[in-house]
Amino acid sequence: MTKVESRVIYNRVALIGLGLIASSMALAMRAQGLAGEIVGHAKSAETRAVALELGLCDRVCATAAEAVAGADLVVLAVPVGAMEAIAAEIGPHLAPGATVTDVGSVKQAVIAAVAPHVPAGVHFIPGHPMAGTEYSGPRAGFATLYQNRWWLLTPDAATDAAALARLRSLLEAIGAKVDTMDAAHHDLVLAVVSHTPHLIAYTMVGVADHLAQVSNSEVIQYSATGFRDFTRIAASDPTMWRDVFLTNKDAVLDILGRFAEELFVLQRAIRMGDGEHLFDYFTRTRAIRRGIIEAGQDTSAPDFGRGAASKAGR
Amino acid sequence: MTKVESRVIYNRVALIGLGLIASSMALAMRAQGLAGEIVGHAKSAETRAVALELGLCDRVCATAAEAVAGADLVVLAVPVGAMEAIAAEIGPHLAPGATVTDVGSVKQAVIAAVAPHVPAGVHFIPGHPMAGTEYSGPRAGFATLYQNRWWLLTPDAATDAAALARLRSLLEAIGAKVDTMDAAHHDLVLAVVSHTPHLIAYTMVGVADHLAQVSNSEVIQYSATGFRDFTRIAASDPTMWRDVFLTNKDAVLDILGRFAEELFVLQRAIRMGDGEHLFDYFTRTRAIRRGIIEAGQDTSAPDFGRGAASKAGR
Repeated sequence: MTKVESRVIYNRVALIGLGLIASSMALAMRAQGLAGEIVGHAKSAETRAVALELGLCDRVCATAAEAVAGADLVVLAVPVGAMEAIAAEIGPHLAPGATVTDVGSVKQAVIAAVAPHVPAGVHFIPGHPMAGTEYSGPRAGFATLYQNRWWLLTPDAATDAAALARLRSLLEAIGAKVDTMDAAHHDLVLAVVSHTPHLIAYTMVGVADHLAQVSNSEVIQYSATGFRDFTRIAASDPTMWRDVFLTNKDAVLDILGRFAEELFVLQRAIRMGDGEHLFDYFTRTRAIRRGIIEAGQDTSAPDFGRGAASKAGR
Repeated sequence: MTKVESRVIYNRVALIGLGLIASSMALAMRAQGLAGEIVGHAKSAETRAVALELGLCDRVCATAAEAVAGADLVVLAVPVGAMEAIAAEIGPHLAPGATVTDVGSVKQAVIAAVAPHVPAGVHFIPGHPMAGTEYSGPRAGFATLYQNRWWLLTPDAATDAAALARLRSLLEAIGAKVDTMDAAHHDLVLAVVSHTPHLIAYTMVGVADHLAQVSNSEVIQYSATGFRDFTRIAASDPTMWRDVFLTNKDAVLDILGRFAEELFVLQRAIRMGDGEHLFDYFTRTRAIRRGIIEAGQDTSAPDFGRGAASKAGR
C-alpha cells in the first residue's frame, strides 16, 4: 500500500464491534490518518483491552451508546443477529448529521433491523465489505484487508448524496473498490457466490466427520485433492454464518433448491452412466473459471497441487 | 528439492499418456537420473512432439505396444476410461518381470480393466498419486509436483514384495509419501475427500451459470467470498472427472446420498429458524480444519481474504 497524504475524512469514527472487519478498518484508517479519532466498543472487556493494546482505538467504551456520542461515522461491525439491539441502544445517542453504516453480509435484514432506530437527520447507508479470512477477532485484522476488494453499498432513493460520497471516499482510501446495488439484489448475489457455497462446504465436512468407515485421520491425511478447500471455507466464524443463514433465508433456500435439483440431475447421470452429460457439464463450468481469472479476482497459478504450495513458499 | 546422488532404479520406463502426471514424473525422474531411459507414448502426435521438445522422453512411439517393449516399468497415465483398451494393447508386449502401475484416481475399476490383460510374470501394482493442479497436458508438468504428496498403492496379497519395494523406492525418490491401502477402501476414501467435493463444486458453478437474475459478470466480479475456491476445483479436466464418476459410481452415490440427507437437515434448520442447530454444526466442522493444519496438509495462513493473496504475492 502506498502511503498517501494524510487527510481526515471523519473527525470521529465509532467502531461498534472490534473483530476482524473493524480492526482491519482501524489499522487501514490509521495508516493514512483518515479518522481524527477512533473510538471502539466491544461487549467483551477482553476484546476492548486487546483493541487498546494493539492501538486499534484511541479509546474504548463499555457501551455502544457512549462510543457513538459525537461520532460523525458509526460502523456497526457486529454479527447480523446483533444489529437490532445495538441500533436500538445507539439510536437516541447518534449525533445529528452523522452517518451510520454496517458491515453485515446480508442487507435486507439489517436494513429492517437498523433503519427504524435511526433518527431523522442521521444518514444510514448499509454496506458490505467483501473481504475476510477464516479468522476472527481483533488480532486477526490487518491494514491491507480491503486492498482491491469490493465493498458494496446499498443506498436507496432517499439516501443523501453527499453522505454517500463521503463514505465512499473513506472506503476507497482504505483500498476498497466501491459499488452500489439494490439491497434485495445484493442478497441474491451473495446467496449465490458466498452463502450457499459456505453451507455446502459445511455440509461436506460434516458428511466426512460422520462417516464411520473412513476415519477422520484419513480424511485429514488425504485432504489435498479437493476437500482441503472446503474445510478452509467451513472453518469460518459460526456465529456470523448462523446469522447469515437465518437472515438471508429466502435467497439461500431459493439457491439451495436449485442446487439440489442440479445435483440430482448429475447424480442421475452418474447412476445411468451418462458420460456425455457429465463431460458437457464439466466443460461448461470451465468458462466461468476463465472469466474469474480474466476479471483479476484470482490468478491462474495452480493452487491445489504441490506446485503452487511450493512456489508460494507455503 | 535437494539433488541426491544419481541412481538408476529402472532401466527403461515407459510412460503411456503424457499429461500433467506423466510429464511431472518424467521431469522428476530426470532430475535425479532414476530412469536409464524414458520412452513415451501419447495418442496425439502433437503431444508426442511436445514431449520431445520439452525433453520429457528420450524417444516417443506412435503406439503403446511399441513403447512398452523392453521396459521394466510401465506407467499407465491415461484417463481411467482408457485403461482397458491400453491394457489389452500392451499385454502381449510386456517384458517378463516388468512392473505395470497406473495413476488412476479410482482403483477397483482400473484393476478390473487392467489385471486380466497382465500376463503371468509381470507385476501389476495399482497406484494413485494424490497430486495435481487444475491444468492438464505435457506442458503443465513440473518436477516438484510430487514433493511431500501422498502416492497410494493398492497391492493385494499376491503382489510381489520385491517389485513393490522397487516401485516404492522410485516414488519416494521423486518426493512422494507412499502408503498402501485396500483398493475398495481407497475408492471410498477418495469419494469422500475428492470425488464428491468435485461434483459439488461443479454443481454450484452450474447453478450460478444458470441463474438468470444474477449475471455471470456479477458472479465473476464478486467471486472472492467462497465461490472462487469452487471454480478452481470445477476447472479440472472434464474427461478425467467424467471417468472418475462413471467408474467410482457406487462409492460416489453412497457419499452423495449422505450429503443430500445432511444438506436437507441444514436446509430445514434454516427454514425453521433453528439457529442453535446451525451454530453447533458450524462449530464442529472447525475441528476437522484444525486437524488438517496440524497434519501439515495446509498452513494456517488465511487464504480467501486479500491477506494471503498479498502476503503470497499473488
